[in-house]
Amino acid sequence: MLQNDTICAPATPQGVGAIAVIRLSGDKAVEISDNVFVSPSGKKLAKQKPNTLHFGTIADNQTVIDEVVIGLFRAPHSYTGEDVVEISCHGSLYIQQQLLELLISRGARMAQPGEFTLRAFLNGKMDLSQAEAVADLIASTSRSFHKVAMNQMKGRFTEEIKKLRDRLLNFVSLIELELDFSEEDVEFADRSQLKQLTGEIEQLLRTLKDSFALGNAIKNGIPVAIAGRTNSGKSTLLNLLLKEDRAIVSEIEGTTRDVIEDTITIDGIHFRFIDTAGLRHTEDTIEKLGIERTWKKIGQAEIILLVLDPTKDENEILQPIKEIRQKIKETDKKLVLIINKSDLVDKSVTNNIKKSIIATAGKDTPIVTLSAKNGDHLKQLESVLKKQVHANDLETGNVIVTNARHYEALKMAHEAIVRVMEGLENLLPGDLLAQDIREALHYLGEITGEITTDEILGNIFNKFCIGK
Amino acid sequence: MLQNDTICAPATPQGVGAIAVIRLSGDKAVEISDNVFVSPSGKKLAKQKPNTLHFGTIADNQTVIDEVVIGLFRAPHSYTGEDVVEISCHGSLYIQQQLLELLISRGARMAQPGEFTLRAFLNGKMDLSQAEAVADLIASTSRSFHKVAMNQMKGRFTEEIKKLRDRLLNFVSLIELELDFSEEDVEFADRSQLKQLTGEIEQLLRTLKDSFALGNAIKNGIPVAIAGRTNSGKSTLLNLLLKEDRAIVSEIEGTTRDVIEDTITIDGIHFRFIDTAGLRHTEDTIEKLGIERTWKKIGQAEIILLVLDPTKDENEILQPIKEIRQKIKETDKKLVLIINKSDLVDKSVTNNIKKSIIATAGKDTPIVTLSAKNGDHLKQLESVLKKQVHANDLETGNVIVTNARHYEALKMAHEAIVRVMEGLENLLPGDLLAQDIREALHYLGEITGEITTDEILGNIFNKFCIGK
Repeated sequence: MLQNDTICAPATPQGVGAIAVIRLSGDKAVEISDNVFVSPSGKKLAKQKPNTLHFGTIADNQTVIDEVVIGLFRAPHSYTGEDVVEISCHGSLYIQQQLLELLISRGARMAQPGEFTLRAFLNGKMDLSQAEAVADLIASTSRSFHKVAMNQMKGRFTEEIKKLRDRLLNFVSLIELELDFSEEDVEFADRSQLKQLTGEIEQLLRTLKDSFALGNAIKNGIPVAIAGRTNSGKSTLLNLLLKEDRAIVSEIEGTTRDVIEDTITIDGIHFRFIDTAGLRHTEDTIEKLGIERTWKKIGQAEIILLVLDPTKDENEILQPIKEIRQKIKETDKKLVLIINKSDLVDKSVTNNIKKSIIATAGKDTPIVTLSAKNGDHLKQLESVLKKQVHANDLETGNVIVTNARHYEALKMAHEAIVRVMEGLENLLPGDLLAQDIREALHYLGEITGEITTDEILGNIFNKFCIGK
Repeated sequence: MLQNDTICAPATPQGVGAIAVIRLSGDKAVEISDNVFVSPSGKKLAKQKPNTLHFGTIADNQTVIDEVVIGLFRAPHSYTGEDVVEISCHGSLYIQQQLLELLISRGARMAQPGEFTLRAFLNGKMDLSQAEAVADLIASTSRSFHKVAMNQMKGRFTEEIKKLRDRLLNFVSLIELELDFSEEDVEFADRSQLKQLTGEIEQLLRTLKDSFALGNAIKNGIPVAIAGRTNSGKSTLLNLLLKEDRAIVSEIEGTTRDVIEDTITIDGIHFRFIDTAGLRHTEDTIEKLGIERTWKKIGQAEIILLVLDPTKDENEILQPIKEIRQKIKETDKKLVLIINKSDLVDKSVTNNIKKSIIATAGKDTPIVTLSAKNGDHLKQLESVLKKQVHANDLETGNVIVTNARHYEALKMAHEAIVRVMEGLENLLPGDLLAQDIREALHYLGEITGEITTDEILGNIFNKFCIGK
């Protein structure tokens, strides 16, 4: 798989900007650059020190394409571990295209998505989980996701996995040693120690595996459904939440132009809102279908904000609470009740409603009283929203799994370890135990890249953007 | 106007990419960077050589924001002429925003659009017309526009203007010297030499001024209207032209994602298509309004492709040709006739139509016979289209004015020079001549920036993107 031909690609986003960067990596990166680069002093890049910057023009024979600054990196001290040249040109798509065509005509080839990072992995500059963290870092849009990706890039996740593997490897070697002496019925691997170790490992794998629910939510935004009867004020509430956030996001002019619709960030945690139609009782077949759909969408949410209208009578208010509690029981979904329109009714009214809710639904469901119209008590709602997320794991810096591939591997490793534990209970012979331990080792190795196939690598790096 | 506080901004386009570059410029660029940059070896940027690259992390106290590569430039050998630091980080909007907030909290401020280039101009790194060429280069989407902008950035345009100014300055000094000796009725400035010079200058200014029509068309695309009766095949022809071009544009995967609707590039020249509704005879008031609008759009075009349907009878074919020729007479607009649907009729039919057209309209109007449906003879049409543009000026490297501000200044300078010539004819006294020459000098100086006001600078640099 290891190739050292010279690849090139734009490394900066497409679009018009002040500058764009074209990246070259490979054995001939410097030679190809020297072929098209003209320095005012006539110097050649090949004779320059590494980690230096050089001003000049890029020309195709007599035709000047652009004035550029070239950054020169030498193997192995570069991103890919190969010779790397970065050309900063004016940020025109036309110029970038001309530059790439020129480099290709002089012997470079267009890089595949993720090929620079693939080379970094193959050259031992980073392990596989770190390489994947690079893609996550680029995609990070919130403080929480950024933090998790940064931890992963710094290798914290890999460290934990490697520690587990080393301990398991030690045991499996001892068990396999027993097999060589199988006639003699010796036990080199202490079964009670192995029992203890597998217990520890099982627990750790389970924790990592379970962290994926949070990790995935952090990565894609915690899905929140705003439910409630028609006219209870769902849209006003959503607009209020979104508007508050937009104002923060656009504080620094020109930095954040691509605001994604219908997501907000509260204290660095990303929430993604799911639109739902109003809930109501109906006998109409078509309307019933619409409400079916609303329930389905509520099913995708981790948090449900149920908006209540205190101007309605008590039964009408309590009915949807009962319905939703019925639907989400035996799930991990969190329900938050919102008594809206506090500007329209007396405090005594909302207090009575609260009492009735507690009588029906118990004390565990958080209740926020607010006016979406006036924007009152929004901060309280945000704070309640944040509490619904297991934010502690995030703050304490525990490793959180965000990658579906890692999750799958952890699940398989966990299943194998559970089989080992059962095998120990049932006094299974060493060779059968060894087989399951080997399987766990295999899946753990897949995460760090100690065990890889071209298919795994292809799947990972194809998802990268060009130029990374 | 000259400020040396430290400014920062993203220099690469917004969006997700492998890397993004944040640029800092000003007296404290290095100090602020050292404040947040942590090198693995503990080195400080302030002690490093200029034009060098440094790997490390950017951290806000204990919180690591990203792993970065820093490019270090020292005044005056930088883009702005000040100390400049370029931070290459991972291409996430979130990371960029965090970085900018951090830099601002340590004493930098967000740059205004074009402020880096404004500083380059104020520090004498480039003249005004070169600074404007930077914006044009970034916006360049075709070979022709790129070539013109590159010439301008290299100062060719400014050179010509400066030569004119120097010669005029020489004369105006002599004339003003006469004024000091006005009692004695001497002539230091040879009137016949001045006459010859103003004649030369007038011609040059006229050529430059007139080149703006081409320059503007190159910059924004040559406007082409596809006209014709309903069902003559206008849309099929447009789709054919556009499709051919798209295929070329997307040859290098990932380089050109933002294809602008309805423009094509033929041999590096940009054509922009103007939609028109079908022309037809009608007495209906509303339809008449629609046809009014079509005529108005045809009025905006420089080239009109009139699509003819050879399956119709001769009178119906010739009528719109007469109408359009009537409308565009005494303008510079070019008419190209297209006999479409060559797949539906015999060659003898199209040949007869050609003969009738030549009998009516003469030999000067180019005629292309093709089938838009089959894509036959498209190359011939493209070649005819290209011929309608004064592409010679482009190929010979003559200076072409693309900037409306330059055009206005050239027009004013030209008017002043014409007044000088008239004054010389009428034997006007030196002080009146000097006044007009001074005016011409003023406008020429505005182009290069030798004469500027804050308003002129504001107008120019406000149009730049942030980070340039």
